[in-house]
Amino acid sequence: MAQGRVLVVAATHGNERNAPWLLEQWRQRPQLLASSGVELALEIGNPEAFAANRRYIDRDLNRSFAPELLADPARQELELQRARALLEAFGPTGHQPCTVAIDLHSTTSAMGNSLVVYGRRPADLALAAAVQGQLGLPIYLHEADAAQTGFLVERWPCGLVIEVGPVPQGLLSPVIAQRTQLALEAVLAAVAAARAGVLALPAALTVHRHRGSLDLPRHPDGSPAALVHPQLHHRDWRPLRDGEPLFWCADGRVIAYSPSLAPDPEARWPVFINEAAYGEKGIALSLCVRERWPCEPGWVDALAAL
Amino acid sequence: MAQGRVLVVAATHGNERNAPWLLEQWRQRPQLLASSGVELALEIGNPEAFAANRRYIDRDLNRSFAPELLADPARQELELQRARALLEAFGPTGHQPCTVAIDLHSTTSAMGNSLVVYGRRPADLALAAAVQGQLGLPIYLHEADAAQTGFLVERWPCGLVIEVGPVPQGLLSPVIAQRTQLALEAVLAAVAAARAGVLALPAALTVHRHRGSLDLPRHPDGSPAALVHPQLHHRDWRPLRDGEPLFWCADGRVIAYSPSLAPDPEARWPVFINEAAYGEKGIALSLCVRERWPCEPGWVDALAAL
Repeated sequence: MAQGRVLVVAATHGNERNAPWLLEQWRQRPQLLASSGVELALEIGNPEAFAANRRYIDRDLNRSFAPELLADPARQELELQRARALLEAFGPTGHQPCTVAIDLHSTTSAMGNSLVVYGRRPADLALAAAVQGQLGLPIYLHEADAAQTGFLVERWPCGLVIEVGPVPQGLLSPVIAQRTQLALEAVLAAVAAARAGVLALPAALTVHRHRGSLDLPRHPDGSPAALVHPQLHHRDWRPLRDGEPLFWCADGRVIAYSPSLAPDPEARWPVFINEAAYGEKGIALSLCVRERWPCEPGWVDALAAL
Repeated sequence: MAQGRVLVVAATHGNERNAPWLLEQWRQRPQLLASSGVELALEIGNPEAFAANRRYIDRDLNRSFAPELLADPARQELELQRARALLEAFGPTGHQPCTVAIDLHSTTSAMGNSLVVYGRRPADLALAAAVQGQLGLPIYLHEADAAQTGFLVERWPCGLVIEVGPVPQGLLSPVIAQRTQLALEAVLAAVAAARAGVLALPAALTVHRHRGSLDLPRHPDGSPAALVHPQLHHRDWRPLRDGEPLFWCADGRVIAYSPSLAPDPEARWPVFINEAAYGEKGIALSLCVRERWPCEPGWVDALAAL
């Protein structure tokens, strides 16, 4: 199998502006992206939403890649059309076939520079482990959440999300842009090293495995009855202790963390705390268990084969 | 003249979520807002934009109160209709007449807890000076900018904006909500004190007087060629020094501040640095001169009369 291009997608969400800004710079001056010799396809995920500076037009593009949605001819929302078009152009059997997809995102949460992996595909884990070994980035492993499906990278043989924050929606920030580029260059270097047969993984990788999400307490009409507590704000990746403040009510009352509130009593590691776009999804934060997995030799082979 | 109500407006921009959240709490439990006995009208500025979580639908509501726009029957954008409706309901000669308007805003810039005053009306200056004397809040005095007109509070005999940040668009934050409430309570206490004849102003107030704005450097197609430099980010209200970094280019070049770039060589105080909503207005930051004005005895009388 010929080694495919790497698809780099920016502005899958149209109000996350730093990655598309970078992408425009790379298009104008390719030497600004040290791509380790890997052939790239650079693409704006949702051009209409980007032009409108909105997350999406009809529906979240990054929840639109579920096979049953893509296959349903009755579903013609703009983002479903765009998902199909992206796959036709850049999918593994597309006109410009890509075997790896890297989707560049930003968040209002203090995720720092991080990776999101969907499920446990060996090639994804090789890539994530290599980048974590190189840069120390934390990994959010998303799986087994029936309410959150249809992510873009899942439709490519290998792929992950680079997630950088905190940054407001619609805002350009050199710090966010530089972090994004740093992570992308590490990903591309890992792909190149795997293909050259010289990728060495660390002995193990640390993952924060998704177990569920908490919503804000709400009034009967759906409006928030409490907000994320200031002491929890920007504390992504740091384990919650019993009694630690979670939510703050207008009258000063505090709702504290207890394992009984969590989807899994061991799921003490919060991520995506107060991500602005997740209000409509009913997610105030997600909770993870932290696990350390030995890296398996087969992972590198799976990545090298792509 | 009977002492009019104070109009408190939240969500004049629909993606600034903290003030409307507070307003909903106050409606449900009025005792949460210690209003110093002043009669209030609480109103969502732009309900359609709030429902859509967007700054506006057709045009910026807070640039829609210019008399010539309001008077033009050919102009029927949603926000112009809303501006007329707000004036009919709550204007000084409206159904529920209000003489003072307080418009609650938030920003992605690090404005802290601050006041914006439009022009030099004595009653506005009394209110701003009283709050600055009480809480030390900085004051941005906006005037003489032909590109930015039609602000809501200008259509009431007295009014100012409470501007709090930094907070991403669309995000609820107790810190921002608490600051907003603190400033509003100080404003209402000042109104009540003026009406009771017991308002004492400080000897002087400090204003940051608007002199102009700088845009990002741009490519011929209008896209940004450089971003606000990280060293300038969140440095609102702190004077720029010659040679200090202003903008950062993707290739690492830096564009530094020099007085020749500014609309006025004395305008060294930046405000609204990297406000996300101002990209479309071509404003990367605004520049002010800092001035100290003696408070005049007539100011309190002007406020007391409303």
